[in-house]
Amino acid sequence: MGRGNQTNKSLDAQPRADHRCVCCWMPEIMLGPRVRKSPYYEATVAAGVSAFTIYNHMYMPTSYGDPAEEYRRLTERVALWDVASQRQIEIVGPDAASLTQYLSARNLAGLKSGRARYAPICDHDGYLINDPVLLCLATDRFWLSIADSDLGLWAKAVAAERGADVQVFEPDASPLAIQGPLAEELAIDLFGADVVGQLGFFHHVGVELDGIGLVLCRSGWSKQNGFELFLTDGSRGVELWDTVMAAGARFGIGPGTPNASERIESGLLSFGSDNDSRTDPFEAGLGAWVNLDGEYDFIGKTALLKRVESGIERSLVNVSFADDSLSAASLPLEHPRAVRLDGQVVGELRNAVWSPRLDQAIGIGLVKSSASAPGTRLTVDIDGVECSLVVASEPFGTPRRLFSAT
Amino acid sequence: MGRGNQTNKSLDAQPRADHRCVCCWMPEIMLGPRVRKSPYYEATVAAGVSAFTIYNHMYMPTSYGDPAEEYRRLTERVALWDVASQRQIEIVGPDAASLTQYLSARNLAGLKSGRARYAPICDHDGYLINDPVLLCLATDRFWLSIADSDLGLWAKAVAAERGADVQVFEPDASPLAIQGPLAEELAIDLFGADVVGQLGFFHHVGVELDGIGLVLCRSGWSKQNGFELFLTDGSRGVELWDTVMAAGARFGIGPGTPNASERIESGLLSFGSDNDSRTDPFEAGLGAWVNLDGEYDFIGKTALLKRVESGIERSLVNVSFADDSLSAASLPLEHPRAVRLDGQVVGELRNAVWSPRLDQAIGIGLVKSSASAPGTRLTVDIDGVECSLVVASEPFGTPRRLFSAT
Repeated sequence: MGRGNQTNKSLDAQPRADHRCVCCWMPEIMLGPRVRKSPYYEATVAAGVSAFTIYNHMYMPTSYGDPAEEYRRLTERVALWDVASQRQIEIVGPDAASLTQYLSARNLAGLKSGRARYAPICDHDGYLINDPVLLCLATDRFWLSIADSDLGLWAKAVAAERGADVQVFEPDASPLAIQGPLAEELAIDLFGADVVGQLGFFHHVGVELDGIGLVLCRSGWSKQNGFELFLTDGSRGVELWDTVMAAGARFGIGPGTPNASERIESGLLSFGSDNDSRTDPFEAGLGAWVNLDGEYDFIGKTALLKRVESGIERSLVNVSFADDSLSAASLPLEHPRAVRLDGQVVGELRNAVWSPRLDQAIGIGLVKSSASAPGTRLTVDIDGVECSLVVASEPFGTPRRLFSAT
Repeated sequence: MGRGNQTNKSLDAQPRADHRCVCCWMPEIMLGPRVRKSPYYEATVAAGVSAFTIYNHMYMPTSYGDPAEEYRRLTERVALWDVASQRQIEIVGPDAASLTQYLSARNLAGLKSGRARYAPICDHDGYLINDPVLLCLATDRFWLSIADSDLGLWAKAVAAERGADVQVFEPDASPLAIQGPLAEELAIDLFGADVVGQLGFFHHVGVELDGIGLVLCRSGWSKQNGFELFLTDGSRGVELWDTVMAAGARFGIGPGTPNASERIESGLLSFGSDNDSRTDPFEAGLGAWVNLDGEYDFIGKTALLKRVESGIERSLVNVSFADDSLSAASLPLEHPRAVRLDGQVVGELRNAVWSPRLDQAIGIGLVKSSASAPGTRLTVDIDGVECSLVVASEPFGTPRRLFSAT
């Protein structure tokens, strides 16, 4: 058939995307086989998911269409999150403990089976490349529960080039989170008071729920309390979702997602959002989880020792908007903007959201240390509106330290 | 202010996503600072982009809302693609050539400055982790123009652990592609007949266009002929887009994206779509670009030698749908499906699209070698419809070899 006879019937039959609207245009996400669907995908569609991002090569829900209700659910009741895209990198074998320590800026001495630690990971230049929670499943078996970068490639390359006697791979392990003040009661209903009562923060244990194998961990990316249920059979995701949703009905459970407003109020780092590609853990406020005085070596240690000696140049700071000039349509921030002190660029506003708790716009800046003192007044241009910012004296949600994690 | 007084005014003011529609619901993509915007982003929005994916941590347009017109533009005239998310990994320094060879399954002997080669990259187990085009900018300076995985982390880890004297980083270099039968004439208008006439396939040269610095390469992810303009100043993306669009008006240029129908017709590999996480380059049909008989070592060589000896177990095959049972609404395929031979699962249908040129549905399968002979009849269940497939005797667009690349 010649080109002139092309009918393109099926392409022409495909729906045209005429959803654009002046006040609320949002582009669609392309669905295709290059990106993985989570084990909970069908359940999230049935629950009314309206937006996704892509995280670790997997679709991750980011909205069910009602931000105010999703925030209330998380902070007043309990929310169910598909966070399967927080993938695990398993390191197992005789050299697993030493390799994991070599990868981690955090001192892992004394880490026991059934416990976890927040473990920032740097490249050889001392820049953050991921900030996983590290679960110790056995003395020779670990899961790095990762943020959005291919840490599996990194760990495999390091292991192979060093000749470490380990296997490095992505296991079938997909977290489903319950987060919120009523998550504890829901967990007790699901797993029993004995199991839940003994589970301290960042403790984890293998359990079964209606025959579905899980690792239950007291953790999650909010400060509202909660648990992550690491499903270890990806074929049973919808079943697990439905079971938890049914048990949570009496607590007012509903679908939700990692919540930008709550996590900025609470001072939790969003790797890749708050930092740029050349941010060290001290700049990112993670100094408390980096151990430069140990006897062991880790990747980036030499570079970080030099950097500490010469002085850390930038700081991650919480900022509040000093006036009401910012329109809600500009929130959450789509991309970083330059911030200025006395007209000079001193860094970036990395994120900004509306805070329901504080009833004002707040954000995260990555600025020169000289502009990071509490009370410093900065400016930022957002969509043509000049806004005033004030560096906060403390994180909004965690009075004693910037990023509270074990 | 107590919780009871929360007004959540700005969250409530945010638009609710009530775009769902029974016949054509597509979720939105969340826009936020974790994912980068391309230098051409604003231009693509102005040009009517309607859908994105995320590729190498950057938004990549996937539709302008009219698939039939976008296909015609690409195959009959010329299309302008924002493919900035095809990022570059630069390797530069005294050990750059030897490190790049160690990373690449392809023999790089004789690769000169101003030339490029398709260079599949494997992990130490011989599985594909990326399939970049490698541009040689100087004898000690290379760009890996990558598919969607953090190959920069991989290359940095290997370089540092081996003590290679190189720098590895992502430079400011963002491809804008012109693809289609009239791309040649457009390129001549933009860069002159002398420059374009001397530029063979996979040749590249540094040029300026209205003072904007570029690397111009005869390349691109289609078989319609064309060029990639590697912009080397990310602040000038919209300017470059507008300049090319204006010059292309007389050729009927318009916006487009990498096109699933055209690339499957043409037999081009889509890394991450066509393969799974344990696919070797022989299974993926890339054997012609893997050199096991050279004297040099490369990552994965030992594993691949063993695998070749024991026999390659799977093959990537082109398939055509043998009947009209598949509805257009199921295309392109959202995720892989099991394919069967005589009722037994023998692999996966990785992709399926409508082919305007062949006027039928076609796809890519990854199946046991025993089920890969031309003419083999397979079945696949797509959304409850049992479809018949036939393994094609040859790729649809490239009669002589599966994946034609230099």
